[in-house]
Amino acid sequence: MMLKVINPNTTASMTAKIGACARAVAGPGVTVHATSPSRGPAAIESHADAALAVPGVLEEIATGETAGYDGYVIACFGDPGLQAARELARGPVVGIAEAAMRTASYLGRGFSVVTTLSRTVGQARDLTHQYGVAASCLGIHACEIPVLGLETPQARTSILQACKEALANDGSDAIVLGCAGMADLCHELSTELGVSVIDGVTAATVTVETLIRLSLTTGKLGEFAFPDRDRVEALLAETPLK
Amino acid sequence: MMLKVINPNTTASMTAKIGACARAVAGPGVTVHATSPSRGPAAIESHADAALAVPGVLEEIATGETAGYDGYVIACFGDPGLQAARELARGPVVGIAEAAMRTASYLGRGFSVVTTLSRTVGQARDLTHQYGVAASCLGIHACEIPVLGLETPQARTSILQACKEALANDGSDAIVLGCAGMADLCHELSTELGVSVIDGVTAATVTVETLIRLSLTTGKLGEFAFPDRDRVEALLAETPLK
Amino acid sequence: MMLKVINPNTTASMTAKIGACARAVAGPGVTVHATSPSRGPAAIESHADAALAVPGVLEEIATGETAGYDGYVIACFGDPGLQAARELARGPVVGIAEAAMRTASYLGRGFSVVTTLSRTVGQARDLTHQYGVAASCLGIHACEIPVLGLETPQARTSILQACKEALANDGSDAIVLGCAGMADLCHELSTELGVSVIDGVTAATVTVETLIRLSLTTGKLGEFAFPDRDRVEALLAETPLK
Amino acid sequence: MMLKVINPNTTASMTAKIGACARAVAGPGVTVHATSPSRGPAAIESHADAALAVPGVLEEIATGETAGYDGYVIACFGDPGLQAARELARGPVVGIAEAAMRTASYLGRGFSVVTTLSRTVGQARDLTHQYGVAASCLGIHACEIPVLGLETPQARTSILQACKEALANDGSDAIVLGCAGMADLCHELSTELGVSVIDGVTAATVTVETLIRLSLTTGKLGEFAFPDRDRVEALLAETPLK
Amino acid sequence: MMLKVINPNTTASMTAKIGACARAVAGPGVTVHATSPSRGPAAIESHADAALAVPGVLEEIATGETAGYDGYVIACFGDPGLQAARELARGPVVGIAEAAMRTASYLGRGFSVVTTLSRTVGQARDLTHQYGVAASCLGIHACEIPVLGLETPQARTSILQACKEALANDGSDAIVLGCAGMADLCHELSTELGVSVIDGVTAATVTVETLIRLSLTTGKLGEFAFPDRDRVEALLAETPLK
Amino acid sequence: MMLKVINPNTTASMTAKIGACARAVAGPGVTVHATSPSRGPAAIESHADAALAVPGVLEEIATGETAGYDGYVIACFGDPGLQAARELARGPVVGIAEAAMRTASYLGRGFSVVTTLSRTVGQARDLTHQYGVAASCLGIHACEIPVLGLETPQARTSILQACKEALANDGSDAIVLGCAGMADLCHELSTELGVSVIDGVTAATVTVETLIRLSLTTGKLGEFAFPDRDRVEALLAETPLK
Repeated sequence: MMLKVINPNTTASMTAKIGACARAVAGPGVTVHATSPSRGPAAIESHADAALAVPGVLEEIATGETAGYDGYVIACFGDPGLQAARELARGPVVGIAEAAMRTASYLGRGFSVVTTLSRTVGQARDLTHQYGVAASCLGIHACEIPVLGLETPQARTSILQACKEALANDGSDAIVLGCAGMADLCHELSTELGVSVIDGVTAATVTVETLIRLSLTTGKLGEFAFPDRDRVEALLAETPLK
Repeated sequence: MMLKVINPNTTASMTAKIGACARAVAGPGVTVHATSPSRGPAAIESHADAALAVPGVLEEIATGETAGYDGYVIACFGDPGLQAARELARGPVVGIAEAAMRTASYLGRGFSVVTTLSRTVGQARDLTHQYGVAASCLGIHACEIPVLGLETPQARTSILQACKEALANDGSDAIVLGCAGMADLCHELSTELGVSVIDGVTAATVTVETLIRLSLTTGKLGEFAFPDRDRVEALLAETPLK
Repeated sequence: MMLKVINPNTTASMTAKIGACARAVAGPGVTVHATSPSRGPAAIESHADAALAVPGVLEEIATGETAGYDGYVIACFGDPGLQAARELARGPVVGIAEAAMRTASYLGRGFSVVTTLSRTVGQARDLTHQYGVAASCLGIHACEIPVLGLETPQARTSILQACKEALANDGSDAIVLGCAGMADLCHELSTELGVSVIDGVTAATVTVETLIRLSLTTGKLGEFAFPDRDRVEALLAETPLK
Repeated sequence: MMLKVINPNTTASMTAKIGACARAVAGPGVTVHATSPSRGPAAIESHADAALAVPGVLEEIATGETAGYDGYVIACFGDPGLQAARELARGPVVGIAEAAMRTASYLGRGFSVVTTLSRTVGQARDLTHQYGVAASCLGIHACEIPVLGLETPQARTSILQACKEALANDGSDAIVLGCAGMADLCHELSTELGVSVIDGVTAATVTVETLIRLSLTTGKLGEFAFPDRDRVEALLAETPLK
Repeated sequence: MMLKVINPNTTASMTAKIGACARAVAGPGVTVHATSPSRGPAAIESHADAALAVPGVLEEIATGETAGYDGYVIACFGDPGLQAARELARGPVVGIAEAAMRTASYLGRGFSVVTTLSRTVGQARDLTHQYGVAASCLGIHACEIPVLGLETPQARTSILQACKEALANDGSDAIVLGCAGMADLCHELSTELGVSVIDGVTAATVTVETLIRLSLTTGKLGEFAFPDRDRVEALLAETPLK
Repeated sequence: MMLKVINPNTTASMTAKIGACARAVAGPGVTVHATSPSRGPAAIESHADAALAVPGVLEEIATGETAGYDGYVIACFGDPGLQAARELARGPVVGIAEAAMRTASYLGRGFSVVTTLSRTVGQARDLTHQYGVAASCLGIHACEIPVLGLETPQARTSILQACKEALANDGSDAIVLGCAGMADLCHELSTELGVSVIDGVTAATVTVETLIRLSLTTGKLGEFAFPDRDRVEALLAETPLK
């Protein structure tokens, strides 16, 4: 089984971290390839960043289809391009926000999201409605750390603090990390907090693996049928987005 | 007052039609410029089409900001790129789906949408939830005419038929046309049906005009503050999407 | 185009203010006539006040129909009598609460309402559900000023303070003023706050103007068909409500 | 215990029927007085009818308060004036739509409403949302009989037929009768259909009786505190609505 | 009329208190028999407690059917076994949570629940959604007193304090007591707080009494038809739950 | 890793089938033990059946905890006892309805459920609300085959027919099988229908396996903390439910 984990931003160190986390949880016989578009935003922190990352994500799906991947993960908490990716791929495509939040739904009454910048909170709230977890999402908390600033020790302290406050205020049963760049903090935070901490990269990787194991994939008879192939391929082939 | 009406697809005849309809309803002293991205999909009929149209829409916003436009209309019924456009523009930005559906909400208990292909119905349903009109939207009906096939006489017959069935089945008070390419049919259909027929192009044009008249614009203190300028400008300037 | 803006209470100074605000935003060629019922409550601050104002509103619609008005605004934030008015009028009827709240929906993620007395908050909350803006309405704040006390300098200070607290607590993108008597404060507040401030009187005036410009009106084939004419006319003609 | 059952329309035969049905279910020691306003619509079949019936309902509450009634029923399926009535009365006020629909909620998964004219269906649907029974209300069916035509044998046949179709199509566990004028059909229909049939007049009568027995009444500390007394009393005393 | 009020826990003193409260409100001619299963949890404070109380509740229904009871109350605020009980009984079955919360809905905009332990709050919140009162339930407050500790004077002080805080914070019109063991505090609290206080035991008792008076009972044609009789009877007869 | 898959009914052949299906999808190193309570209903087709199966399910959890299982599946589509089981177990517990329906949410716009008896449809609908998939569940279809009649060839034909009708009517992207007894039909149906068919037994098995792989489990700090141990253990040990 071959999985492609797509980091929609172009920061190589983050792609490497995502790949390591995904490989750490993949089952035996599962090959995980982490990748990111050659061009696009270095970080995704606004609606414009997300929108301009999507063509790159779709190119990665398109090249993945040629290469024969069995499934895909979109490794940015806004799940950019998820519906279009499902049109283009034969196998299942899972976003890390949907996987993290649905996985958290198995662990009790509700969860809190801890994320990067407060300007992304509205988008995360939208996703809770889209994925049917609005009632389970008991709070979304920004720690005001930019995506590319997550590696510093102060960042870890801020995130830990935000998680503690979230648990205390929301009465939640688990924490969902709201950025792929936090994937490596998962176990450490869980140990310190005494509750489950869900990272979307690992949650989505095992989710897509199990969908494939169960022979399940996107319905291709209606809304997610392959779109006008000439039109899409031409756009993707001739104009790789910066 | 200068308004830019952006047709997110690249079909010039459709841009011309959209411009004519918008100008027909704009108030005195309002200049309407209809435009479309230089490259992108010729029609928007799938999630992939919509996603790949967005960078072009944002380029039109960016060049519009340089040129000093007061407001923008995004003239495709999926409102592609609307939230990102609101980040980039100083003045208001209105999508034709939101304008059509909110305008219809003033006319009674509920409305029916008549649109092109059934594969777009799910997306339209999503928008009714996003815009708070799910309870008012009493039905969404596809007449299975592709976007670029709307000009034929048979198309008009099919659309009229779909409108009649929608009114009969849904008990609705108005019809919303679910594609910018139907803008020119509005009056004719209204006359034949005996109910209000709302076209999003004209609805959005007068809506953005009145927002400007009332000195109202997007809140720029939080989620819709201008995003990382260097990042976005570089992406838009250097890589015009095909 | 002739518009009738109905102040449902009988306080003449407020009718004059409402008329001035509406005329200030009406387009060229639009005549705005502000009026109020000859008898009824001097202010609307309870469910009973609102209920007892409705017959007067409907009489104004009925005389307006005889006089040939093209459309109507109901200028009280509870939108009293709106559905009955839509039955009686040929042209469109718009309430200031629905216009203000739907207009605010074009400006970002959400808005806060700043209103008069806390006993009206429940009613305003009801309207957010009725108009599909419950998710966009991030807070409703009363400043405990009675409707007829809005003219004092202290009132303006209190309202400004309530707006500032609303923005800080709710993270909203715009302010909606929850009383027709606040219409004249709109620009001043917007300047001081740095966000859009929406007054329903002006929002409803331009909304009904644009509905007429687009030839849109209430659906008259079902729920909003003209009611039993003899019954309604007799009630309205013979018993003007005090 | 003294209960006032207010028929909001002025048709005396209907008031008599309502009174008889209410008295038939009232407990020992409960005096039921059925009344209707001296002036107002003869039947309530539109939003305008309902709006113009409200002042009369409130006058009945006001005179009831002077006379010392312990509680009130508003006996029209639209529950006209219910919130204002709660402001004016010390004791509990119950509408027949809310009582019928909440009572039906104790009887299984869901109920169907069978009502008079299809133009009232939208209003009934609104009430299901307002009263929290939207998920339990599995269908609303109009049999197109005007309120004052309910007494004919054909009417009974049509209503029985509509009930049967409702049960078959909706899979509901009970029928709610959507008009006070159907109160006398309750037992007969129940016997023929083999399911519970709920009439709001009787349901509201026993509900208000039990609220009083439990010493429960409207909260008077906030939204439903008595309104500006001079203003309301003057309006009610001096201008009895026709 | 014979009513059986079932205390799902096995604490005899609580059963006695529940019986006394129910009898105090039952109408003339109504015999109330309070009972509890011979074996089961002494108090219900967790999902496991509730689940293990259900077989005992169903045995009480089964023996009640043999004895010819006309209706039943399930006197634990989680309404354990309510749907199964409705299958087994011919007459109506009412839970105290549903009765308390629906009864409170007649008294204004909303109510607050004051309950025992915070671990039960999630369950109470679930019930507000199930019973359609989520919008009316303005807060759920635990005073951290275990079910069997409600008799102490300190408990009464804590409950009174929790009610006061609930009214102040939630702006509610009434208090719902979230445990059958609080039934005897109802009048005293109401007097001290100046608002209606609803106890589910009394609310459910009068509700089931009135359902019977109106000849209403559970729909038996579909979901709540009597289940496979041999299977259920065998399970109940041969294995009385401890 | 040791998983216990609990069939809540006592039919051994069904337990064997469930075990075989679960083992077929479990990853390497995962031991699956399928079991059912020694006593309880032979099939679960009513609320009473489900309620009376719960004590047996909880006993299986309790003995599982002693034996050191890492996680549990509750293999009945009503997920009986799920919340109580989460209190009792250290490791994760997953119901087959929640797993099937959340898994289906990754595959497109929506799914249809095909189930056994129509009297269970209401319960399934309830679960879609509880699990946040109400908008994705486009239809629930009963084929009126009792649980213990699923093995016949006619049953397979009926189920296939129901699936075809569901796809045609609902426009869904996947089928969810609404009974553990259908687990073995999954691949065959998928092949014939050309869409993904989700069986809850396999979906829940891989879900609980991946939760354990990610070190995720139920939050134990609040609602799902272990309940009063003496009380629960005594009830479970001394009174095994028939």
